[in-house]
Amino acid sequence: MTSPSVAPCRVAEIDSWTDEADVVVVGFGAAGTAAAYEAASANASVLVLERTSASGGAAAMSDGMIYLGGGTATQRGAGFEDSVENMTAFLTAACGPAPDEAKIAAYCAGTVEHHDWLVARGVQFAATFRPDGGGTSPLDGEGLMYTGGENAYPFDELVPPAPRAHVVQGGRPGGAALMTVLTQAALDAGARPSYDTSTERLVVDDGGRVCGVIVSRYGEGFAIRARTGVVLTAGGFINNPEMVEQYAPVLHLTGLRLGTEGDDGRGIRMAQGAGARVKRMDAVECALPFNAPRGLVHGILVNRLGQRFVNEDTYMGRIGQRALVAQGAEVYLIVDEAHYAPNWLGVPAAWVCATAAELSAEIGLPDRALVETLDYFNQHAAQGVDPLFHKRPPALTPLTPPLAAFDLRADKFPYAPFTLGGLHTLPSGEVLDVDGEPIAGLYAAGRTTSGVAAQGYCSGLSLGDSTFFGRRAGLSAAGAKP
Amino acid sequence: MTSPSVAPCRVAEIDSWTDEADVVVVGFGAAGTAAAYEAASANASVLVLERTSASGGAAAMSDGMIYLGGGTATQRGAGFEDSVENMTAFLTAACGPAPDEAKIAAYCAGTVEHHDWLVARGVQFAATFRPDGGGTSPLDGEGLMYTGGENAYPFDELVPPAPRAHVVQGGRPGGAALMTVLTQAALDAGARPSYDTSTERLVVDDGGRVCGVIVSRYGEGFAIRARTGVVLTAGGFINNPEMVEQYAPVLHLTGLRLGTEGDDGRGIRMAQGAGARVKRMDAVECALPFNAPRGLVHGILVNRLGQRFVNEDTYMGRIGQRALVAQGAEVYLIVDEAHYAPNWLGVPAAWVCATAAELSAEIGLPDRALVETLDYFNQHAAQGVDPLFHKRPPALTPLTPPLAAFDLRADKFPYAPFTLGGLHTLPSGEVLDVDGEPIAGLYAAGRTTSGVAAQGYCSGLSLGDSTFFGRRAGLSAAGAKP
Repeated sequence: MTSPSVAPCRVAEIDSWTDEADVVVVGFGAAGTAAAYEAASANASVLVLERTSASGGAAAMSDGMIYLGGGTATQRGAGFEDSVENMTAFLTAACGPAPDEAKIAAYCAGTVEHHDWLVARGVQFAATFRPDGGGTSPLDGEGLMYTGGENAYPFDELVPPAPRAHVVQGGRPGGAALMTVLTQAALDAGARPSYDTSTERLVVDDGGRVCGVIVSRYGEGFAIRARTGVVLTAGGFINNPEMVEQYAPVLHLTGLRLGTEGDDGRGIRMAQGAGARVKRMDAVECALPFNAPRGLVHGILVNRLGQRFVNEDTYMGRIGQRALVAQGAEVYLIVDEAHYAPNWLGVPAAWVCATAAELSAEIGLPDRALVETLDYFNQHAAQGVDPLFHKRPPALTPLTPPLAAFDLRADKFPYAPFTLGGLHTLPSGEVLDVDGEPIAGLYAAGRTTSGVAAQGYCSGLSLGDSTFFGRRAGLSAAGAKP
Repeated sequence: MTSPSVAPCRVAEIDSWTDEADVVVVGFGAAGTAAAYEAASANASVLVLERTSASGGAAAMSDGMIYLGGGTATQRGAGFEDSVENMTAFLTAACGPAPDEAKIAAYCAGTVEHHDWLVARGVQFAATFRPDGGGTSPLDGEGLMYTGGENAYPFDELVPPAPRAHVVQGGRPGGAALMTVLTQAALDAGARPSYDTSTERLVVDDGGRVCGVIVSRYGEGFAIRARTGVVLTAGGFINNPEMVEQYAPVLHLTGLRLGTEGDDGRGIRMAQGAGARVKRMDAVECALPFNAPRGLVHGILVNRLGQRFVNEDTYMGRIGQRALVAQGAEVYLIVDEAHYAPNWLGVPAAWVCATAAELSAEIGLPDRALVETLDYFNQHAAQGVDPLFHKRPPALTPLTPPLAAFDLRADKFPYAPFTLGGLHTLPSGEVLDVDGEPIAGLYAAGRTTSGVAAQGYCSGLSLGDSTFFGRRAGLSAAGAKP
């Protein structure tokens, strides 16, 4: 590592504190603004350290979808019913294996209140739903979206589907609009930002309590005291190649990195240096935006053996995760003329053939593999069934030659991954040490932690759990009960 | 956690040392005996702390296969050619993604010397090879075995195959014979064992150097000083349910745990408490001993969709890893009458049917899925090819009804997993901290570390890298250059 050490500094090594606050928040993104707001609202003095010149983080680059449910006013306004029980059942199934049940329970129990809290801060949602919505990113007019496969197999058989991604209105990308609102809320509550300030190390007292941080600002080092707590909301580690190799080597297959330069894992490592444990560091989410325009979902996705591997009408983030992790990012989308359109990213089909046999050979799939797969698929689709993956009508139709194939291999199509693993925290935001005990004075939220999406994912869960558990981490750090 | 804290103890808290040695080795298994031998042979005083009443660890329960090559005397005696280059190329391909190239390079460069070192200690190998060997465990008379898919696709096209698992002779299981020899070697070299001694915490001085351990013996606590180094060779974490949930939740699918009670991850966590980094904690190996008698390899393995997913003639540990991780441990073995035999574990077929259609329905596979798979397989097998997975003749034959199916789901058949993730060490055995710098005074080897088998696996790599890097860790801890 060429970056400076993350080993904690002992308080005895500090000559003098340059600044101090009750609560020091590291990172001014979604989790950081929420933490700062709540800590300041609980009458703590709050200092927010942000390494760039502005708030926002990766959240400001995002589409601004927030995963909320349980019957929010927005859901009800659009005519959708939902319940805490249904949302809990869905997330427990969708975020496994071995989901973080404590976080899911807290998140679902508080989701309606959190929706209203966001609205009270000034976040705008819209009680609208476009049945023909892209399913990838909000195009226009979507207020609510399905972003986790809620209306696809197997989840649609588990509980009645409800769209839960609440798209932030008021500008595009929605994430920028969200961060404008949350930044202002944190500042209005009294949080004091320090920009261009990179946090380098934690300061730990003789009892092991985190009591401050060492920062670097324009090349100079300072010690900043945190009287009641430090909150790490410093993003994930997608932009740290060494950590990626160490924990999530499957990402070597992809070129894109969904995150900011700040997603270098330093928040995670600083806490590890103070004895924190990490969790699910191999977990990654990966969007595969193949399914817009929506008609392309009529196609079938096959792997390098010509085998289907997923129901094409489920969430494209679930498909991307499987394509990357289980299929080595070697997949193809086969579609017929009736449903062909260039992908919204401007990607055209790579091959067009008069027969499945020709297409199979052109792609370079094993002998006639695609012929067998298509025969089986078409024979059943004509009867409205998909015995393998339960893709549903109307997206389920036989594919009639001529056929086209999109090349969705990682060197030909964008896979957009980010990391889901991080510090092991309690719903309160307390960071656990290797014994499983909270580290005094240390809190975290957002992608610095392993969150609601311990393994599976739904779009909107990052903004969702960053703001939700960010609030709780801020309260805990201020000494208030979350 | 109900177990006592693993947080390091500061040296200032130690009133007096009960015992001391230059090198303190934690755990008297394969890595521990090798470390103790080398440290003692380098004239260090060596104390080995073993929590049970005897040496051996998980190694003593194993089949006693050691993965060695590059042209050992045993290989040459059996008429096999091998080279360091071929072994390096094979392990680089087989142990990925993102293999530990530094460890592979060191391991392959030293493999012939390590073979001879083992022989010089008294370990017996045999220059024999049974072409009809079980491929699962040594049955009788195997001196060398293929245990990594060296002679199967894709590896057989990469470099000329050579069997590299060297089966320890002189008793069954071979692992017990090995540990008898290595224990005696360590004792003869002057290492002093302390049995029934559980190591609880590391002791760290003010500069962060590991300078001792806190142990518990018959309920009493003692401090033991390590003048030059502590070597952690305390096994993996397969028997720590909380760590499994945190790092490798896929193991919740399996009931078996390949390891001893001591594989509770304490060695890993003690080092983490002192700031060590971990690596690939999600990686698991999983044997699926379906392929004995060997005739069963003529069958095809299918997943819950009736799709094949692997060449059945490759290493059963590779198949088991894929069956568990990528197929959710829901797989079936389909075999015809000509090749049917009860599995050597005494497991009979679960279903027998006159036709593939009936069998598909009996198993509960999607509509006629098995019919399509078998048609495709048979049609090509009759021509001696397997376009999907490149299974090779003579194991490649069409399957002729009547057909039988073995139920290889995890609740019906033993999956035997263990953990591969652990501390991030250098080939010297030095344990890296979260900055990527060695922690002074701390060394590790064996399944406490992420080893040669960073992700993929070959039987014999655990005994191989435990003894190989155990030796180096012992030398390093003694202050000698490995």
